[in-house]
Amino acid sequence: MTRALYDVLGIGNAIVDVIARAEDGFLQTHGMQKGAMALIDEERAQAIYAAMGPATEISGGSAANTIVGAASLGARAAFVGKVKDDELGRHFAHDIRAAGVAFDSKAALGGPSTARCYIMVTPDGERTMNTYLGAAQNLSPADISDELIGAAEVTYLEGYLWDPPQAKEAFRKAAGIAHAASRKVSLTLSDAFCVGRYRAEFLDLIRTGTIDILFANEKELLALYETADFAAAVAQLSQEARLAVVTRSEKGCVVVSKQGVDAVPAHPIDGLVDATGAGDLFAAGFLVGHSRGQDNKTAARLGALAAAEVIQHLGARPQTPLRALAKQHGLSSAG
Amino acid sequence: MTRALYDVLGIGNAIVDVIARAEDGFLQTHGMQKGAMALIDEERAQAIYAAMGPATEISGGSAANTIVGAASLGARAAFVGKVKDDELGRHFAHDIRAAGVAFDSKAALGGPSTARCYIMVTPDGERTMNTYLGAAQNLSPADISDELIGAAEVTYLEGYLWDPPQAKEAFRKAAGIAHAASRKVSLTLSDAFCVGRYRAEFLDLIRTGTIDILFANEKELLALYETADFAAAVAQLSQEARLAVVTRSEKGCVVVSKQGVDAVPAHPIDGLVDATGAGDLFAAGFLVGHSRGQDNKTAARLGALAAAEVIQHLGARPQTPLRALAKQHGLSSAG
Repeated sequence: MTRALYDVLGIGNAIVDVIARAEDGFLQTHGMQKGAMALIDEERAQAIYAAMGPATEISGGSAANTIVGAASLGARAAFVGKVKDDELGRHFAHDIRAAGVAFDSKAALGGPSTARCYIMVTPDGERTMNTYLGAAQNLSPADISDELIGAAEVTYLEGYLWDPPQAKEAFRKAAGIAHAASRKVSLTLSDAFCVGRYRAEFLDLIRTGTIDILFANEKELLALYETADFAAAVAQLSQEARLAVVTRSEKGCVVVSKQGVDAVPAHPIDGLVDATGAGDLFAAGFLVGHSRGQDNKTAARLGALAAAEVIQHLGARPQTPLRALAKQHGLSSAG
Repeated sequence: MTRALYDVLGIGNAIVDVIARAEDGFLQTHGMQKGAMALIDEERAQAIYAAMGPATEISGGSAANTIVGAASLGARAAFVGKVKDDELGRHFAHDIRAAGVAFDSKAALGGPSTARCYIMVTPDGERTMNTYLGAAQNLSPADISDELIGAAEVTYLEGYLWDPPQAKEAFRKAAGIAHAASRKVSLTLSDAFCVGRYRAEFLDLIRTGTIDILFANEKELLALYETADFAAAVAQLSQEARLAVVTRSEKGCVVVSKQGVDAVPAHPIDGLVDATGAGDLFAAGFLVGHSRGQDNKTAARLGALAAAEVIQHLGARPQTPLRALAKQHGLSSAG
């Protein structure tokens, strides 16, 4: 096996976030489930946008945020995702390239517009998301190249890819190429409702060894095993997953491996501004630590540090160069 | 004179800000004058965008920021400015309306796209701006209605309006209507280079009494009187202006009126994140205080408070409802 060209390659929905502050009453009025991601059609997208407050637009997308975080930590990173050749799509492409990520996916010239996620940030810092998938719906196996996947140490995929019709085929193709090239495959479960939609398939991916490194938060793990008992879910996970990390917001995370279960605390913060991207940036730190040969607990600390940075400002991508921040905290992220 | 329908009406360039962090070296490489606003054409806009880092898009425009700040302070506010009916234009219109501002200017259906300002925020929190005026170039007297101007206690205009070819005529028309209706006219000098371009005309506006309330920062005032001597410039201003406020960043401001010169300190901050909008929000607080019948020093304190909020986060529009913030600080902003 040759040395990989990329430390981590992400495949996900290419989305621009449209973020506004909102009161809890707004979520109720508009039938939104707090903390969750709901898929919406264009009509509902227009209705939500018309009703929501002044908005900030920042490139987002779960796996894309992770890959930008990895690049900010000094990793060699690439991303695959589908935008349209419109204003938002050019915005997305500019931002991810400007962050140092290789991004060569072809933009769609016709069809639905670039995906948008309308994010309401409530006064407690929690975010509630409404995604119009648009052009991201058309990610397909044709967008996955053997060469690119084979060139990445880890291919990281988001559970959200189960939503667009052909993206799961792209996902399976990528996983197959990665394993054939003796590379690793990583998955985030993305969202508890997403787990509810595709539970059997996600369990199958874990049980068949398609996933080498799994990321989930507490709610997603409980949804996966249809239980309210966290300890029981972790016990089951430890029997089925090769390596998994379960994040628990301010309670930190647990790393679950064949060697046992290790708890790692959250990184302290001054104040929670916007929780968007917490899980995405945790995954970035962990994957980069892992790719640098760090032990799991150290990699988890790097994940916690990256997550702490992103929740202290609006938007799901780092505003501070994470490599320097990691160095400051005695967590070298670069090889 | 009937009671005005609006406390303050702003006329300015309708612009979406595209904000990125940059090192000082970036400004040098691209020939940018730190802290200033430069006008750029579409070609340079594309070159700057291609070179700059990941960006956040937030509705901006100097006078528009002021009007949004006034609305956030509880004032009845309206805005006149020119966008195109494109994605950015709809973004601008959504945001200003969602902030509670009346905005009924007709969007252009053809011609150049909605104005953008590429803003580089350096590590010291200073912002350097590059504006592509686009659709804002076509603001004209036809966009100014007697009814709207007559319905506003104060019409607030930005010096930047001297850049688009017909906007100064729109400006003069608005000032004429306002005075005919016994309303007040306010002007911000906008930028020292802008003063350099239109110095004689700005002096004429002040000397002829076209301007009732003038806003300037220290650099703009020095440029207006072509001097390096701040005290001399203030002395001259006190002879020529009806009422003027000169802002001096962390040194606070001076209120210059026929009654004398009063210094008011800056509002304390935890840390400067992005200076964009400091002057705009100062003007918002002062104008709202003034319209509520506060004395000049109290109005200046309200201005200082609003400015302090906006420089502690990215973007030039408030993220905290300013009316509640003013109340917290014993500065009632609402009538």
